[in-house]
Amino acid sequence: MQSSAEPEQASPGNSRLVSFVGGDVGEWLVTMCCAVMGEPLKPVNRIAIHSDGGAVSLTTGSQWILRGVTSNERYATRIEKEQLIAKQVAIGRVEANRAALIPIRKNADWWSMTQDERRAIFEEQSHHTAIGLKYLPGIARRLHHCRDLDTAAPFDFITLFDYCDADATAFEDLVSALRETEEWKYVDREFDVRMIRE
Amino acid sequence: MQSSAEPEQASPGNSRLVSFVGGDVGEWLVTMCCAVMGEPLKPVNRIAIHSDGGAVSLTTGSQWILRGVTSNERYATRIEKEQLIAKQVAIGRVEANRAALIPIRKNADWWSMTQDERRAIFEEQSHHTAIGLKYLPGIARRLHHCRDLDTAAPFDFITLFDYCDADATAFEDLVSALRETEEWKYVDREFDVRMIRE
Repeated sequence: MQSSAEPEQASPGNSRLVSFVGGDVGEWLVTMCCAVMGEPLKPVNRIAIHSDGGAVSLTTGSQWILRGVTSNERYATRIEKEQLIAKQVAIGRVEANRAALIPIRKNADWWSMTQDERRAIFEEQSHHTAIGLKYLPGIARRLHHCRDLDTAAPFDFITLFDYCDADATAFEDLVSALRETEEWKYVDREFDVRMIRE
Repeated sequence: MQSSAEPEQASPGNSRLVSFVGGDVGEWLVTMCCAVMGEPLKPVNRIAIHSDGGAVSLTTGSQWILRGVTSNERYATRIEKEQLIAKQVAIGRVEANRAALIPIRKNADWWSMTQDERRAIFEEQSHHTAIGLKYLPGIARRLHHCRDLDTAAPFDFITLFDYCDADATAFEDLVSALRETEEWKYVDREFDVRMIRE
């Protein structure tokens, strides 16, 4: 918090901001870039993930930057959250040599719904949390919100997953299960980047 | 949406971003600045409201800038939203010569709760929507979210109200009723700026 003796102004720093830079540098080597729905992003060779909240700019060889913030959960109930906490692991395990970066955008119908309507589709109809829970602790997941950060941003959410070779088939099952849900009928743009750690 | 031939980068433009500049310029003449809870903002003479989403910087005479984005509702059910839609009016009526700018921050306990826990306090215990509904259409209200926009920002939410002289007493009742709720026990910083249009 700035002192009240200083002009109080929202600084550009955002400690929960994560930037994903697609280009020629970064720890993650891209093995597949796939436009699942809507306009594709440019294919890239590597992804660099910057979790320090600082400003990141496009540099030579970079094709795009996606930005999102981690935040409070929007749908999970206390019971569901306790189930998640009991099984989940954080992104970044040393042994997790595979990752997926899946940005999605939801359509205007989704955003015009009320909280109870969105919740009913998200969980009661689509079992989003329950599906993710089935694949814990093997597949770690971190959600980043973009929609309120910048209305010009190309996606509403960015999900980062990581997992080991042994869970690669399970990961395909997880992604397929989510894409078959009622919730996914509201997804109008989706890109899918698969990576290995080098 | 940018063409896929261009580098895809979150631009600084945010069409739902509103900036409130406290200083010596602006349409709204400040009649009262009050720190209700926590560290005060500097008192200012005027408030300028910029709703065009562009970048706004501190200029000579400006003491602070608060920024927030309008967004989807987080708690209202379909039934509650229909009740609001039936009675509410948009901020900016020509005859509304009074306004209040009330930024608040909620504490870590609030943000660590799950959606169902926050909803129960917000509405079932505190009747937040029901209280606001009582004062429609006289008192118009627009909520702006700051928390995910910038974790360094001094508040989580900014609410702007406008109303006519005839509703000034009703507005005091509304603010008092909200401050007595269970929800307000989670508010750890609140500032209150009252204004008249000049």
